[in-house]
Amino acid sequence: MSLNAVLARIDTEMPAALERLFALIRIPSISTDSAYAKDVAACAAALKADFDSLGFATTIHPTAGHPVVVAHRPKAGAPHVLFYGHYDVQPVDPENLWTSPPFAPSIKEIAPGRKAILGRGSADDKGQVMTFVEACRAFLAETGDLPVGVTLLIEGEEEDGSKHLPAFVEAHKKELKADIGLVCDTGMWDADTPAITTSLRGMVYEEVVIRAANRDLHSGLYGGAAQNPAHILARIIASMHDRNGRIRIPGFYRGVKNPSAEQLAGWKALGLTEQEFLGPIGLKTSVGETGRELIEHIQSRPTCDVNGIWGGYTGEGAKTVIAAEARAKISFRLVGSQDPAAIKQAFRAYVKKQVPADCSVEFIDMKGSRAVALAYDSPAITAARQALKAEWGVEPAAVGSGGSIPIVGDFKRILGLDSVLVGFGLEDDRVHSPNEKYDLKSFHKGTRSWARILAALAKV
Amino acid sequence: MSLNAVLARIDTEMPAALERLFALIRIPSISTDSAYAKDVAACAAALKADFDSLGFATTIHPTAGHPVVVAHRPKAGAPHVLFYGHYDVQPVDPENLWTSPPFAPSIKEIAPGRKAILGRGSADDKGQVMTFVEACRAFLAETGDLPVGVTLLIEGEEEDGSKHLPAFVEAHKKELKADIGLVCDTGMWDADTPAITTSLRGMVYEEVVIRAANRDLHSGLYGGAAQNPAHILARIIASMHDRNGRIRIPGFYRGVKNPSAEQLAGWKALGLTEQEFLGPIGLKTSVGETGRELIEHIQSRPTCDVNGIWGGYTGEGAKTVIAAEARAKISFRLVGSQDPAAIKQAFRAYVKKQVPADCSVEFIDMKGSRAVALAYDSPAITAARQALKAEWGVEPAAVGSGGSIPIVGDFKRILGLDSVLVGFGLEDDRVHSPNEKYDLKSFHKGTRSWARILAALAKV
Repeated sequence: MSLNAVLARIDTEMPAALERLFALIRIPSISTDSAYAKDVAACAAALKADFDSLGFATTIHPTAGHPVVVAHRPKAGAPHVLFYGHYDVQPVDPENLWTSPPFAPSIKEIAPGRKAILGRGSADDKGQVMTFVEACRAFLAETGDLPVGVTLLIEGEEEDGSKHLPAFVEAHKKELKADIGLVCDTGMWDADTPAITTSLRGMVYEEVVIRAANRDLHSGLYGGAAQNPAHILARIIASMHDRNGRIRIPGFYRGVKNPSAEQLAGWKALGLTEQEFLGPIGLKTSVGETGRELIEHIQSRPTCDVNGIWGGYTGEGAKTVIAAEARAKISFRLVGSQDPAAIKQAFRAYVKKQVPADCSVEFIDMKGSRAVALAYDSPAITAARQALKAEWGVEPAAVGSGGSIPIVGDFKRILGLDSVLVGFGLEDDRVHSPNEKYDLKSFHKGTRSWARILAALAKV
Repeated sequence: MSLNAVLARIDTEMPAALERLFALIRIPSISTDSAYAKDVAACAAALKADFDSLGFATTIHPTAGHPVVVAHRPKAGAPHVLFYGHYDVQPVDPENLWTSPPFAPSIKEIAPGRKAILGRGSADDKGQVMTFVEACRAFLAETGDLPVGVTLLIEGEEEDGSKHLPAFVEAHKKELKADIGLVCDTGMWDADTPAITTSLRGMVYEEVVIRAANRDLHSGLYGGAAQNPAHILARIIASMHDRNGRIRIPGFYRGVKNPSAEQLAGWKALGLTEQEFLGPIGLKTSVGETGRELIEHIQSRPTCDVNGIWGGYTGEGAKTVIAAEARAKISFRLVGSQDPAAIKQAFRAYVKKQVPADCSVEFIDMKGSRAVALAYDSPAITAARQALKAEWGVEPAAVGSGGSIPIVGDFKRILGLDSVLVGFGLEDDRVHSPNEKYDLKSFHKGTRSWARILAALAKV
């Protein structure tokens, strides 16, 4: 049977597949820092060369931001899938905390018998994208064809909020027409249990700038009289949550639903404990809303987090300054039918109310997206579940993801497409942190999983 | 009369005096940043060369930090004064806000008929130190002698908390023996009214580090469950003041006295308005304690200010991280008999109480000093008052300074010495900010003032 031959080829091709992934990781395609724009472009070019070599018709589409790579390989009489991933990566700061250079990938034994690929983008999302590409490559090498028609849509701005992607999808609606969306940017339940993500939190991300005096002041002269923007910002942040961990912005919880008894029972059966989830990162107690399960905090409840804060003197020693301004990056994860536009507006009104009359506030809008829910019993998801079970030997978990993948909502809204979200990341991958890694097992069995899923989807 | 000849010489020497000051400003003697240690040393050497040329016996004393320059010129049968100043300067960040390079001094007309010396240290404290040195130079050139015995004590760590100065003064107690302390590191009341500072606020300065998870986290995975150190820090800062602007640390106001009716009446007579004080920096309303005069807020009340805050992602774009740690530099200005050690302890206890059990806090002690009060009717201050009135044509104001000059307390405690604090800085000097300046009038008439004070002190 040809699937077995494809799987066997994936096994023997692993060293070459890793070398191809390493070549991609070596390109520092950081999308949020304009200093790396050339590297982002180089990464798009590398993908095109690879996809062309596989017989895809590939185009690099420029956008007002970073380019989108689109590659087609249609197949008459078979379902057509639209695969999404991204080739851009997060910044690497603080770089001094990396134990090996972020863009010099290597394999390391991180625990007895457990090897991982080290490097920025190894998990998020270059490694994940390549699990799908390598599955296609093995099919083509072994059988000369793919089981289904495939379009690859690999963007370069995911870490910067996919700013130009919705407009791109809208403009290329016809070209991107497909039967099923596939997205590989999520994780496993644990190292042995695969997962299909069936809900995704949305996001509102804002930078807030509080300005007081027209220049930095000497605290010895003006302290006790002049407004200190760091104090104002601290009061605003401190006011975001009440004592029970609830977010205090008026109307914030509009559109948030409690999980069904069945869903809650299913989650409880997974038996996730605080010790298990927070222990590895050195914490003990969840800060989520009082009276709710930990799994609700991370899967089905909206959140608010300061992602960055800065103002005044942050160097060595003691400078007695009152800064002219203080800034914070604040993000919200949304669920259910929460409306990002309404929440942004309510947040801004809530902040403005707390800014004294002789001070000012500026908001810099970073991104907004709605939460998404997918039907667990659709034919495509059912096919993917069976394929994953065949590869891993256990029933995959159906999970809600805390992270936001706005493309899933765009696929639904613009292309009328339901997506299957399968990924092989693990909680300890240190995605967005120093020392990002991707388990070798994730890469190897992830590739095998996609081969099985492609074969299964041919019959949907 | 020789004083008039000295004053006339000061007038004609101005261009050369400015050139000497410029040479000092060109040395970037930033004490808080170890990258500038060589420049700090070079500045000490430049001072020694100058003092030696004036016939002082000068020594550069190394310390565990930056060196102290001590120069002696004793005079039998006359009072001996110990003059204090500092040759180190503040960092220059944010450097892009400087309209001319911070270490390339120049003269600029900043308003019709009003010229100023631009550059880091022009006011704080190189310009001020040189008003005294130029007064000595004029006396020596004109009369071959000084009216009193003089010791110059010019330190290089004032902007870093004068860390090693108390121990130095203690160790050189005998050598530094004098009758009167003179300090030139304070300001005028306004551009036409000189001032003698008779009280100084003390200081406690701490860096606070809040740590939560053992690494930076992806807010999409851990948001809603994991502690965010920026939130904890914000809550702590927000809790420092109550709604009436009072500091909430238990016991904080122990040792704080209300001003006497007489003192309050004198301050009210100065007629300082919020519009006058805060208008130039773009603010309208004082944030000080409800029910107290603005002048109390800035002169006689203790304060608490965040001087710097940072944590998480502060670069371009939107990184969805929950930082492992967040930091703030927080300082308190002390008055009356507030005890810095007790306040530091109370502050730490107050913060610790607010840190969740699975997070931690570290305190980095920057400095501590008590407030100081000086008798306005002492013979030395009376002599200085008369000399200043002769130069400026108006009675000098007696002011309390919001800033801290710990040496004044050290002089009293270690040497049993009362000090006279006279300086010529103005509120708009932008000390510790970009575009620091020192009015040419401050430099010129400041030098003339010291010549008059030296002459007056000979008779004390």
